[in-house]
Amino acid sequence: MNILITAGGTTERIDNVRTITNSSTGKLGSAIAEAFAGAAHLPVEKIYYLCGLNAVTPASEQSGTTSIIRIGSVNELIEKLSEILATQKINVVIHSMAVSDYTVDSLTTKSNMAASMTRFIKDSGQTGDLSPETFTSGMLQAAFSGNGNLSSENKISSDIEDMVIVMKKTPKVISLIKKLQPHTLLIGFKLLSNVSLETLLDTAYSLLLKNGCDLVLANDLAEITPLKHKGYLIDRHKSYEEFHTKAQIAEGIVKRVGSILTRGNEES
Amino acid sequence: MNILITAGGTTERIDNVRTITNSSTGKLGSAIAEAFAGAAHLPVEKIYYLCGLNAVTPASEQSGTTSIIRIGSVNELIEKLSEILATQKINVVIHSMAVSDYTVDSLTTKSNMAASMTRFIKDSGQTGDLSPETFTSGMLQAAFSGNGNLSSENKISSDIEDMVIVMKKTPKVISLIKKLQPHTLLIGFKLLSNVSLETLLDTAYSLLLKNGCDLVLANDLAEITPLKHKGYLIDRHKSYEEFHTKAQIAEGIVKRVGSILTRGNEES
Repeated sequence: MNILITAGGTTERIDNVRTITNSSTGKLGSAIAEAFAGAAHLPVEKIYYLCGLNAVTPASEQSGTTSIIRIGSVNELIEKLSEILATQKINVVIHSMAVSDYTVDSLTTKSNMAASMTRFIKDSGQTGDLSPETFTSGMLQAAFSGNGNLSSENKISSDIEDMVIVMKKTPKVISLIKKLQPHTLLIGFKLLSNVSLETLLDTAYSLLLKNGCDLVLANDLAEITPLKHKGYLIDRHKSYEEFHTKAQIAEGIVKRVGSILTRGNEES
Repeated sequence: MNILITAGGTTERIDNVRTITNSSTGKLGSAIAEAFAGAAHLPVEKIYYLCGLNAVTPASEQSGTTSIIRIGSVNELIEKLSEILATQKINVVIHSMAVSDYTVDSLTTKSNMAASMTRFIKDSGQTGDLSPETFTSGMLQAAFSGNGNLSSENKISSDIEDMVIVMKKTPKVISLIKKLQPHTLLIGFKLLSNVSLETLLDTAYSLLLKNGCDLVLANDLAEITPLKHKGYLIDRHKSYEEFHTKAQIAEGIVKRVGSILTRGNEES
């Protein structure tokens, strides 16, 4: 069987030297890869390990079963993931990567925005005729579409007084997986911060239903320390198992995947 | 003698999981640390190595001469650097870290901005009486100071349609160094992207004059590849030496520092 694991965080480019990064170490993804590589009862042939630029990599890299593929932006992740899912039979996808929800749409400065807005007033000359909502909408559109937008092709000069970064949504990577390989076993991840267990489980279960996941690992930043990592592995019946360390989560996922595959996907 | 080296890039926090990073590997800083640690003719006692969260560290870490101090934000850099310069005699400061020129001021969304701007029009009710410039300035201030600003304390929900990040200038770290230790030998770094040699040298020389540097290493992103690294080491007379690899730059800096220190700072 072939496994695809995503791990670590994505990196979106602001300019040549500045990036917006989802700061995930990739340690959980790496523990999962090692648990699969070491699972005696599962015939693992190949692990495709797509990970962020600074993510740690599993020791199974040395044995040759694991191919490490470094990923920068969300677009790069979509490209590589789609390529693998379109050309290889993948039995299990573990999507643990912290994927940026946003990418850079445009860069500007407050003074560029002010200039564009002033020009908008002068050009339209009809302030009084518009409703405050319509007028505001025009002003804001002018503010963000002025010619004054900075170029992100080179390094932005550090002489600029302030910088306004407009971010737009990225496509939801997890939603692509079952579309490309409907019969793969999909394990999603949901990381929230400082929420109740109920909210965490509900949000994770919504993710499961929405994207056709077989299992979702729910975790909360407030319950992750260097030594502990609380995780809740939720299934399609909304029952869940609780784990307390990365190693436990990794072993738990491998065990559960093994039993689902053995029973011929009866759970799903 | 004691040496302080800054290397790698800083990391500014957007929220619990997202950061803006200056993507420097720290390889040049690390090569410089190793060159100093291995310089037989220089009595190096201690190297304070302040580096970014993902920066590589010099092999001299093992020998005990080098203390590695990891740095996140620009504020953290200022704090650690000031502490060391205020309490230790530092003979040489090599400031090669890629320090973010901006830190996050506030976070908002386009719809929050629109709501604040509309409220501003309704509250002021005097659109026609103001000049376009004054009116725009009020609108923009309203847009960025609305109560709708997102909290950065936790992870920002991924349900938000867009995200507008306002960045403000950080203090110039290099300008603090000679204020805290006037007699230290200071080597600044200037990285530009795709400029002429003349512009590069002029910009680096301005940095030298402005901050009381003894030397500045000027380099251009377009001239840096995994195998080559062009660098120009400029002195107070605006003459410069040219190097072609990180190792050459590191050796060149050590040699130059050695000769300045031997001649009792006569160059400066």
